[in-house]
Amino acid sequence: MAFRYDIRLSGSGGQGLILIGIILAEAIGIYDGKYVVQTQSYGPEARGGSSKSEVVVSDTEIDYPKAMKLDCLLAMNQKSCDDYYMDLKPDGLLIVDSTFVTQIPLPKAYQIPFTHMARTIFKREMVANIIALGALAKLTGIVSPKSLELSVLSRVPKGTEKLNRDALRAGIKAAEKAKKAFSPRIISEREDEDT
Amino acid sequence: MAFRYDIRLSGSGGQGLILIGIILAEAIGIYDGKYVVQTQSYGPEARGGSSKSEVVVSDTEIDYPKAMKLDCLLAMNQKSCDDYYMDLKPDGLLIVDSTFVTQIPLPKAYQIPFTHMARTIFKREMVANIIALGALAKLTGIVSPKSLELSVLSRVPKGTEKLNRDALRAGIKAAEKAKKAFSPRIISEREDEDT
Repeated sequence: MAFRYDIRLSGSGGQGLILIGIILAEAIGIYDGKYVVQTQSYGPEARGGSSKSEVVVSDTEIDYPKAMKLDCLLAMNQKSCDDYYMDLKPDGLLIVDSTFVTQIPLPKAYQIPFTHMARTIFKREMVANIIALGALAKLTGIVSPKSLELSVLSRVPKGTEKLNRDALRAGIKAAEKAKKAFSPRIISEREDEDT
Repeated sequence: MAFRYDIRLSGSGGQGLILIGIILAEAIGIYDGKYVVQTQSYGPEARGGSSKSEVVVSDTEIDYPKAMKLDCLLAMNQKSCDDYYMDLKPDGLLIVDSTFVTQIPLPKAYQIPFTHMARTIFKREMVANIIALGALAKLTGIVSPKSLELSVLSRVPKGTEKLNRDALRAGIKAAEKAKKAFSPRIISEREDEDT
């Protein structure tokens, strides 16, 4: 079966989720050369101020570009986390901005304070999305770091290249740290021993 | 059958086609309250410097968000016009930037010099996409002018609001003029008279 990887980036309008969806899709599609579809959907609920952006990656042409069961969900606020965590696959990856997401609905989630980092390290809340993008890239491995950096630099406003590159790298570092904090799962007793 | 309207915005990278796709989708989805899916697809051919962005509008939830046969194609350069005009429905609407598209493959097309207008009226080539968006809105009638203006103002960089609003309105006006230039089709002799 063809490889397929479904990502949803969610939060509130103004958190720049569409932009990082485009950056991620261009990194994977243009620079890494895979098949990617990047999507925004709006329905009558769209007025609520929520925002979501989807990226589907495949090694063959994508027939159905709407995200199905998610391999990765980025939730930048509590509402989007609550609304969408059920769409994750059983082994799907949940990444939350712990600045706003305080109630984690799953036993395992990567909790990184993207917005807090943006405020304290960069004094610019607007780069929280780029920090999150760096973390997501590191945690999923879905895009090469070099492609991602090229794509970021091609899409951010002129004059903000260094800021955004630093934010991306800070996100990658934070993800490395978060990964280490998860100790490997040790199966001491096999649950299926009796069967 | 449900109403569905498929639009493709095409040209070269840097012409801002993804941005106007998002603006159009948000105008229709958030402000007009219809169902919309806005999509970018990339495959191995993506490196060529071409860019396309799709917007699918419906009055019910959209199951298949990839544009199928097109109701409207905007082609901002010759290559995209050549590549995609075959995807139009028989009665589909072709709109071209006549600054760059000089060979028109169909008997009927709206030819408006978006980039030339951007250069001469606004001294800013970058607003060619917004002029085109205004024209497309007028020619398709798919979005209310008020919603579109709100959406433009929410998405363009701060400080460029007036420029972009003026560009949008210039596009609408150019489309009105282009519409008048098409005299109504008069069928003087029925081609199927003998059958």
